[in-house]
Amino acid sequence: MKTPMKVAVTGAAGQIGYSLLFRIAAGDMLGEDQPIDLCMLERDNEASIKAARGVMMELDDCAFPLLNKVCSTSDPSECFRDADIAMLVGARPRTADMQRADLLAANAQIFVQQGRAINNVAKPDIKVLVVGNPCNTNAYIARKCAPNINPKNFTAMMRLDHNRTLTQVAQKINCKVTDIEGLCVWGNHGGTMFPDLTHSTVKGKPVMTMIDKTWYLSDLVPTVAGRGGAIIKARGHSSAASAANAAIDHIRSWIKGSNDQIVTMAVPSDGSYGIPEGLTFGFPVVCKDGDYEIVKGLEIDDFHKEFFAKNIKALEEEKAIVDEIIAKS
Amino acid sequence: MKTPMKVAVTGAAGQIGYSLLFRIAAGDMLGEDQPIDLCMLERDNEASIKAARGVMMELDDCAFPLLNKVCSTSDPSECFRDADIAMLVGARPRTADMQRADLLAANAQIFVQQGRAINNVAKPDIKVLVVGNPCNTNAYIARKCAPNINPKNFTAMMRLDHNRTLTQVAQKINCKVTDIEGLCVWGNHGGTMFPDLTHSTVKGKPVMTMIDKTWYLSDLVPTVAGRGGAIIKARGHSSAASAANAAIDHIRSWIKGSNDQIVTMAVPSDGSYGIPEGLTFGFPVVCKDGDYEIVKGLEIDDFHKEFFAKNIKALEEEKAIVDEIIAKS
Repeated sequence: MKTPMKVAVTGAAGQIGYSLLFRIAAGDMLGEDQPIDLCMLERDNEASIKAARGVMMELDDCAFPLLNKVCSTSDPSECFRDADIAMLVGARPRTADMQRADLLAANAQIFVQQGRAINNVAKPDIKVLVVGNPCNTNAYIARKCAPNINPKNFTAMMRLDHNRTLTQVAQKINCKVTDIEGLCVWGNHGGTMFPDLTHSTVKGKPVMTMIDKTWYLSDLVPTVAGRGGAIIKARGHSSAASAANAAIDHIRSWIKGSNDQIVTMAVPSDGSYGIPEGLTFGFPVVCKDGDYEIVKGLEIDDFHKEFFAKNIKALEEEKAIVDEIIAKS
Repeated sequence: MKTPMKVAVTGAAGQIGYSLLFRIAAGDMLGEDQPIDLCMLERDNEASIKAARGVMMELDDCAFPLLNKVCSTSDPSECFRDADIAMLVGARPRTADMQRADLLAANAQIFVQQGRAINNVAKPDIKVLVVGNPCNTNAYIARKCAPNINPKNFTAMMRLDHNRTLTQVAQKINCKVTDIEGLCVWGNHGGTMFPDLTHSTVKGKPVMTMIDKTWYLSDLVPTVAGRGGAIIKARGHSSAASAANAAIDHIRSWIKGSNDQIVTMAVPSDGSYGIPEGLTFGFPVVCKDGDYEIVKGLEIDDFHKEFFAKNIKALEEEKAIVDEIIAKS
């Protein structure tokens, strides 16, 4: 039997957490031979603690063979202590009266604290995925507050955007999602992100020869960008199960490899493709042996550069605001 | 690539359905090499249809490699046509003003209709699991309305009670759930059911030598019977993820085998252990080659018979009420 891996999950009693924890415990993320210690971080208020207790009872009621231990705490140091993986799902959502700077400040508080706790108590090679929005900048904050951890290990989730793009393309050209290769979503998870089909193929044939550019730019790009809103409109709730699924895909690819396929992860830029070093940016990556590498050498033209510029601008504006907050914290 | 199996799920846009569908599509139930056609049955009202559409959008957004097709309908014939597996999750819940007979009547309407549709359009070897309560009697109704299908293939879910018992025992004697063998829950899913530890062992040692009978009867039996209520109290919602997990366990064991282990399924009695033939009763079963067998020859004493009698009485009372309804339908 393998040694258990400790998975820390924040916002565990929320909607995404409820869709996520049971799949982690069932082995969907780390495989059927990997025992798991699960630790949930919840806010220190009665409703959250009660909800977390209910989730723990239900985890017990599943009698998961792989679930070695489960705990719930409102203390980040307890949650992240010796953790192998952290999935930072909890974040402060935007309320009607909030300006963007307020939202960034509210989230900065959370991610400064969690970044420091990770720095102090987690395994040195912990892998961190930020799901809570604005996820790219939240991942940037946590990384900046964890100087002892390899910066590369702080990532943000754009796999949901990647998966959404896959299905939209598959439905458009009537193929299987597994037939599509080389697709990625560049940039900042949000309105400016760029689903890139220009290097994508279906059974070796370029996708761009199978679709027209008007559909691509006027339909696909806004559909992917607006998909979260469309789900809320249909369900009356935001995406939970599909977000949880993307989080599982992200970590599973990272740990177990992506079988030489390109997947999308938002990771600290190493300067590739002219993206300023250090921004948490959606890149095409390939995962192998528990590590990821940004795919190099893809042909980039003015069309890409225009999209990149919008995303760089958005992320640099957020960075300027949160750098000030981090400096004062 | 294997031929897709069609899985029909009713009440798919409810809480259990939302926890269930994504795990089915991820391969948790039928394995990583089994493509799936998923068909959801929803009630014909705006809220249900909208919720089902939201779920379908999120299933799309997961880009599940195994999900061959997904559809949603309010027509049982469309939902069950050529289905290999039916998971009947949707049922009429009991409201404050309802008597037990009203509840049975309201559910009889649903399960008479679904039983007939299954009879007329499903694959002849369809496997049916009823999750919606009162699940034993609902399974009985559907079976009675499907004379062309092997009666053995109509089952009800007591795996959640089984799993709950496993963890309670594991926590009591401080062992792993996977160390416990031979446990089952007899009877009717509800207040009278009987978690049986008398044939259960941990690494070959009888569980009954490791616990005291007072804890067993005064603590374990009521804890398992009252667990659903305790979850509602903690969560503010009824068990969803743990119920979905048990449904997956039930079907996975049935299809892929239980590795010579005893699991609990509520199945039509063949008269074993003095349980009247035809009642849908929780039994210890072993699954192999896509079939289950009731475990025979277990030693039964007065202690068991007393519990059996209560469950037989409850199920025969329900049977009398629904037999009349079925005859008139």
